[in-house]
Amino acid sequence: MKNELGFTTYPIVPGHEVVGVVTQVGSKVKKFKVGDKVGVGCMVASCRQCDQCVDDLENYCAKSIPTYNGVDTDGTITYGGYSNIMVADEHFIIRWPETMPLDIGAPLLCAGITTYSAMKYYGLNEPGLHIGVVGLGGLGHMAFRFAKAFGMKVTVISTSINKKSEAIERFGVDSFIVSREPKEMQAAAGTLDGIIDTVAAVHPIEPLISLLKPHGKLVLFGVPDKPLELPVFPLLVGRKMVAGSLIGGVKETQEMIDFAAEHNVLPDVEVISMDYVNKAMERLAKGDVKYRFVIDVGKTLKAA
Amino acid sequence: MKNELGFTTYPIVPGHEVVGVVTQVGSKVKKFKVGDKVGVGCMVASCRQCDQCVDDLENYCAKSIPTYNGVDTDGTITYGGYSNIMVADEHFIIRWPETMPLDIGAPLLCAGITTYSAMKYYGLNEPGLHIGVVGLGGLGHMAFRFAKAFGMKVTVISTSINKKSEAIERFGVDSFIVSREPKEMQAAAGTLDGIIDTVAAVHPIEPLISLLKPHGKLVLFGVPDKPLELPVFPLLVGRKMVAGSLIGGVKETQEMIDFAAEHNVLPDVEVISMDYVNKAMERLAKGDVKYRFVIDVGKTLKAA
Repeated sequence: MKNELGFTTYPIVPGHEVVGVVTQVGSKVKKFKVGDKVGVGCMVASCRQCDQCVDDLENYCAKSIPTYNGVDTDGTITYGGYSNIMVADEHFIIRWPETMPLDIGAPLLCAGITTYSAMKYYGLNEPGLHIGVVGLGGLGHMAFRFAKAFGMKVTVISTSINKKSEAIERFGVDSFIVSREPKEMQAAAGTLDGIIDTVAAVHPIEPLISLLKPHGKLVLFGVPDKPLELPVFPLLVGRKMVAGSLIGGVKETQEMIDFAAEHNVLPDVEVISMDYVNKAMERLAKGDVKYRFVIDVGKTLKAA
Repeated sequence: MKNELGFTTYPIVPGHEVVGVVTQVGSKVKKFKVGDKVGVGCMVASCRQCDQCVDDLENYCAKSIPTYNGVDTDGTITYGGYSNIMVADEHFIIRWPETMPLDIGAPLLCAGITTYSAMKYYGLNEPGLHIGVVGLGGLGHMAFRFAKAFGMKVTVISTSINKKSEAIERFGVDSFIVSREPKEMQAAAGTLDGIIDTVAAVHPIEPLISLLKPHGKLVLFGVPDKPLELPVFPLLVGRKMVAGSLIGGVKETQEMIDFAAEHNVLPDVEVISMDYVNKAMERLAKGDVKYRFVIDVGKTLKAA
């Protein structure tokens, strides 16, 4: 296909939190055998030679290839997990824990590792620490669950009071702050060791920075379409940082899924059939999902 | 004095990199005796009880009192070091190394500890690392000297080529990049482990972030009068951070000055007399100093 500017375009077939059962293995495969439960996350290849790859941080390799809509080494486009069969390099395949349900656990391969890896790297995984979660959605509820498994206190920060009852009753968060209420923000100033900010829209971060204790860390996960306003003075006087993080490497993804299985860290999912995808996309755009859709491709994919 | 709005104002008497010789000690003083060479940095008191104080981070104590223009516990204003005599609490006094010249070493008590503490906290003090220094002035040349003492490679980044010969000939920096030259910036993309950014004016940080390797750290020291533009995407894809730091605690200041004495890390100073202060302020405003003025108050202060 070519678009109106003459560039070749490809249909995007998504799916990067893929789980299933091994049906066939290549002759040199050592890590898996037929019948093993496995998962594939956000990437299917990387250079395997650069500093990042050598350090088990394939996710930061400049040549890593995303599971969908990436250009593979042979020039073809990667088409993700909306398929009844998938072929992948064993290095990028995760061993699925026996006690982890295939459907419920699937979102751990992106939302799970994204929050887990960041919390570990930035030292926000110690018992007794107190973190804030901005945006209680797909990423936010995983951050909450991991924080609880790490033994931490969690405050949810939201622009509106609408999610308060759900945050407290469904999740049992320790406290809830409405960011548009100056008194609530003032009362919580300087109380958080870190903040997991999952908001993708342009939003003010100065009020969030004010919630941090000295040496606190604001970790961003959303990508706004414009730069954010960064106030420098509060970073200096409190030795604070604003930072980012992106999924995790293969080794850490395995560690994360084993930790999640052991500590019962599970996403809340709604399992749907393949023919519900378009409807699910509509609902997703309205934020109408608690908190991730999972498609049962294997049981519901119909022949074209 | 009251200003035109009716607020009480005080004359600011500065001076927060103060060195001298002990002439008298209180009866309970244990740390020093008459004749000792000593220094006082940016603060003269703190609460001594909060988490920050207990962790030897008095500089982040919410109640720390600056050496000048602070309100002391008795309600009086602190007047800094432009004086032939100064009284200070022994806890906030630094033991001066025997081999360190009093005049030349003085700026280490602010510019020195500011860069040393940040480089240590953010892990930018390991042999073999490569850092960038933006702004080769009072802070920047200290960052360079400490980096060399730590065994690191240093690239100076400047908006103009004017400082290039000085950076290379006077300091022997490893390389020099003109940030307004896209080709030079492009060639250096992804090469730095960290950047010490001492620029106080509003300036673009996206080009600096692009110079960082994955997991690189941009540490800010200047306070622009408006927020900076923070691009989020490059923070995520490279797990990078933008952070601040403010001077250092008493214990670390002692460690820094001992390290500086041992490794011959000294600022470049121009020693002036007290009656040159106004002229020095004029020259300072034009950036006409290499790289810190030091006033010899003791020898040149005249009776009012």
